[in-house]
Amino acid sequence: MEKKQVIDCYNRIKPYIHNTPVLTSRLLNEIVGAELFFKCENFQRMGAFKMRGATNAILQLSEEQRQKGVVTHSSGNFAQALALAAQSLGVKAYIVMPSSAPQVKKNAVIGYGGDVVECEPTLQAREAAAKEIEINKGATFIHPSNDNNVILGQGTACLELLEDYPELDIVFTPVGGGGLIAGTALAAHYFGTNCKVIGGEPFEADDAYRSLISGQIESNETTNTIADGLKTQLGDKNFPIIQQYVDRIIRVTEEEIVSAMQLIWERMKIIIEPSSAVAFAAILKEKASFQNMKIGVIISGGNVELNNLPFTR
Amino acid sequence: MEKKQVIDCYNRIKPYIHNTPVLTSRLLNEIVGAELFFKCENFQRMGAFKMRGATNAILQLSEEQRQKGVVTHSSGNFAQALALAAQSLGVKAYIVMPSSAPQVKKNAVIGYGGDVVECEPTLQAREAAAKEIEINKGATFIHPSNDNNVILGQGTACLELLEDYPELDIVFTPVGGGGLIAGTALAAHYFGTNCKVIGGEPFEADDAYRSLISGQIESNETTNTIADGLKTQLGDKNFPIIQQYVDRIIRVTEEEIVSAMQLIWERMKIIIEPSSAVAFAAILKEKASFQNMKIGVIISGGNVELNNLPFTR
Repeated sequence: MEKKQVIDCYNRIKPYIHNTPVLTSRLLNEIVGAELFFKCENFQRMGAFKMRGATNAILQLSEEQRQKGVVTHSSGNFAQALALAAQSLGVKAYIVMPSSAPQVKKNAVIGYGGDVVECEPTLQAREAAAKEIEINKGATFIHPSNDNNVILGQGTACLELLEDYPELDIVFTPVGGGGLIAGTALAAHYFGTNCKVIGGEPFEADDAYRSLISGQIESNETTNTIADGLKTQLGDKNFPIIQQYVDRIIRVTEEEIVSAMQLIWERMKIIIEPSSAVAFAAILKEKASFQNMKIGVIISGGNVELNNLPFTR
Repeated sequence: MEKKQVIDCYNRIKPYIHNTPVLTSRLLNEIVGAELFFKCENFQRMGAFKMRGATNAILQLSEEQRQKGVVTHSSGNFAQALALAAQSLGVKAYIVMPSSAPQVKKNAVIGYGGDVVECEPTLQAREAAAKEIEINKGATFIHPSNDNNVILGQGTACLELLEDYPELDIVFTPVGGGGLIAGTALAAHYFGTNCKVIGGEPFEADDAYRSLISGQIESNETTNTIADGLKTQLGDKNFPIIQQYVDRIIRVTEEEIVSAMQLIWERMKIIIEPSSAVAFAAILKEKASFQNMKIGVIISGGNVELNNLPFTR
């Protein structure tokens, strides 16, 4: 995708999203030995960067498509993002969610005006339910990460970050479905000054790491990670971008994720979800390689259940 | 105290403190029906506004006094603030803490280079231990809230807020020992445009509310509040300022405090301590009076124990 597409996307979604603040921490800089710039997408509308891609995808629909609505299947942040983006734009959103999803997540989607459609908790059932809505309602299916408009939208967080700090040496993101890191890599390529992009990924769901080595999209057999936003699988739209523009991926353990998350909560006083901590955990893990650099970190989201936190002492 | 004193104080402490960000939330604005501007002192160095007053108090000492160090008694944020401010300025800090204080709080003070002196957990023992250090070491005693230099320092958060948003109708703060609200009231008086100051106070420790009614400093017989920073007592330095410049105090229940805290955690994705939630709880409680106003809120701090949170669902 071209530079102009990223710029056009940003201008298109700007009125509907927050230009989120960038926070710094003297203490975390000291711990890492580098200068860190945290792009706080946990402060984004609905609490995650997914709002960007969802908004862009809906804005690219024709008037006729908008009248018929959009559909996705997700039990995570994209469900809420598509519901809120659709509501902001006066479009109907059908969100297919497994019946086993926590009620609090269903309520969040309903709170943003989304139409929750429950299905059995299998991938086949989710896809079938979405397909049925596409056919019966004429709604347009929007994939949470493997969609060029979604990828472009997710990249605008890095675009804003580089507008404020054009001299970054590296930008870190977590890697799940691949939409965020692909969009970030495009933005860093077009708007950075030799700015590398590095991903953080849990060992327990390291499909992207293995895919970059094998040169083809690999799957996760199990995904026993606390970083619930990163269980999803790379796709054929974002993988080629990742291959071309991402420097490398650093894998981290579950303990490293929780410990990085706790460090950010305690020292920066911001609420980040486990998936967001994965990027920072990757920096901590290989900090010797990043001494004295200027490093951007996309804090992807802050949606956690406060009555079920992983911290102990 | 005069306008010039506030300005001089700000210029003095500026190099040692953060000009903390001001956050807004579309959703909380909708809930309240007003425009809210949250001054995030939870992002201040050591996690609370107390850093401001502690820094100012030390900077006002003579060279000879600095060489002999400072002493306070506190088991809360002022203990950490005085330790860190002293460390930044190359001054020794003796912090008298009850032996019953949580080890994590003692460790925080030690981490900032403070010299923890343990004593029996009574007010007499604390005062006696501090007195002993004053006599034996020649250290200068600095009170956490009832000290003009501390009051001036605490007011600089409101000064920064009004620099960014000069049109605020009201600024809310929590009320504990009275240093923050007194300093805020001075800053609002000198730098606001008819800007009122209103305090939030727990029913369970409502000495300031009762003092304003009776016209003399009242005490709390018990202080069974989750807002542990607000258990302390008004003093003779800050009370006259509060009488003169504070509009009124709104009292809130423990349930209202926890619920306001949870709302900010969940919606703003920032970590605030229960004492900070008291100011926002006061706004929520009487929101009918504040429709369409521009309201500043001093988020006083973010030091909480993550393994002991009050949230349930």
